[in-house]
Amino acid sequence: MPAPQLIAFDADDTLWPNQPHYDQAEAQLYDLLTHYADADTLSRRFNEVQRRDLPLLGYGAKSFIICMVETIISLTDGRVTGQEIQHILDHGKRLLDFPIEPLPDVRAVLDVLQEQGHRLMLLTKGDLFDQESKLARSGLGPYFAHVEIVSEKNEATYQRLLQRYHLQPADFLMIGNSLKSDVLPVARLGARAVHVPYHTTWVMEEVPAEQLRGVDFHRVEALAEVVPYIQALTEAEE
Amino acid sequence: MPAPQLIAFDADDTLWPNQPHYDQAEAQLYDLLTHYADADTLSRRFNEVQRRDLPLLGYGAKSFIICMVETIISLTDGRVTGQEIQHILDHGKRLLDFPIEPLPDVRAVLDVLQEQGHRLMLLTKGDLFDQESKLARSGLGPYFAHVEIVSEKNEATYQRLLQRYHLQPADFLMIGNSLKSDVLPVARLGARAVHVPYHTTWVMEEVPAEQLRGVDFHRVEALAEVVPYIQALTEAEE
Repeated sequence: MPAPQLIAFDADDTLWPNQPHYDQAEAQLYDLLTHYADADTLSRRFNEVQRRDLPLLGYGAKSFIICMVETIISLTDGRVTGQEIQHILDHGKRLLDFPIEPLPDVRAVLDVLQEQGHRLMLLTKGDLFDQESKLARSGLGPYFAHVEIVSEKNEATYQRLLQRYHLQPADFLMIGNSLKSDVLPVARLGARAVHVPYHTTWVMEEVPAEQLRGVDFHRVEALAEVVPYIQALTEAEE
Repeated sequence: MPAPQLIAFDADDTLWPNQPHYDQAEAQLYDLLTHYADADTLSRRFNEVQRRDLPLLGYGAKSFIICMVETIISLTDGRVTGQEIQHILDHGKRLLDFPIEPLPDVRAVLDVLQEQGHRLMLLTKGDLFDQESKLARSGLGPYFAHVEIVSEKNEATYQRLLQRYHLQPADFLMIGNSLKSDVLPVARLGARAVHVPYHTTWVMEEVPAEQLRGVDFHRVEALAEVVPYIQALTEAEE
């Protein structure tokens, strides 16, 4: 395989923490609503509502807010008060403007790859407005020659992007924390994928182990390890 | 000026009706909430909330839902019931899957332009998930060589798109119903803009008349008129 011509990074939980903010908002809301139901019951119902509404609402903070409001209305048979729903809106809206701090090594890795002349892309799924805002708040925009925000990261999405950038699968390398979104569909197309695990994974992104059988991808423990990996790919070609 | 190399169409209220569905949802909700406040009061407060929250929430149905819930909580000092809020969610969610029917002449115009070999783009602002879904429901996808969904249509956005497609302003033609989003920023860059008015305009898209002074754009009364207009531009070049 030739050296990659385009290196794409996932954003949430690859370049900056995201899921911990959602986990924290959820926990704080369950504390507020504990007189209606315990956290386990709330969480179970919330996941059911999200699973049902995701095809209609998509990802992101606005979807989180609407699903949380629906969860609590249905769990309380409508007894939840307007004030309590306002708390849900307030906590949810904070997910739209929390400070974005790059994870350790992110700037160093992007600096090195940029100096080495690699063409870098930010490739994230989610709410367009939300993701654009996070990128702006991160200050990482200048590293990326291309920014693509998509509603879903599946094989069709990656295929479309390869066409758009006139690339063969072998020219493309994807780096991210989600096996479901960043690794599996990329590997299935015959492109390279690097998995950088994050300590918490959204339940909707979990992948049953059997789906990974026979899938060819590279796993690192920390983002810094992608630098020697890409170096080796580049030297192998020379 | 040379003939346009890329012809971009706005989507909502240019290719298919959108604002009427929002107007209808609003009116139905005001009917439901009439025991709290009259429609004028509700509408005024809703517009205030939208204006305040738009920079945080962006456009689209999810933003509509959240702003409407906030409006009614604040107007009732939290007395609104969970059931009533569920009605808001239900009406709002219908905005995410109503049937998309192209406006009169849309298919005929796209057929002719496609036969004439023009390269067509769909260029819409709003919620990524929402807009992708509307395009899929419209069945118009195959007409467009490119689809761009952006969070805002201002001069910077159009500038970025021209760069992405390696175009000069003179190569680009934008067609749409919004003076604010489809006409003014395009004309200011020196590209061509065609205004196709629609019978209803969202209050957030209204433009004071003085902003149009000295702005050079082409106005048609019906979409079908863009065909002879583009024909004339192409012949002028030959």
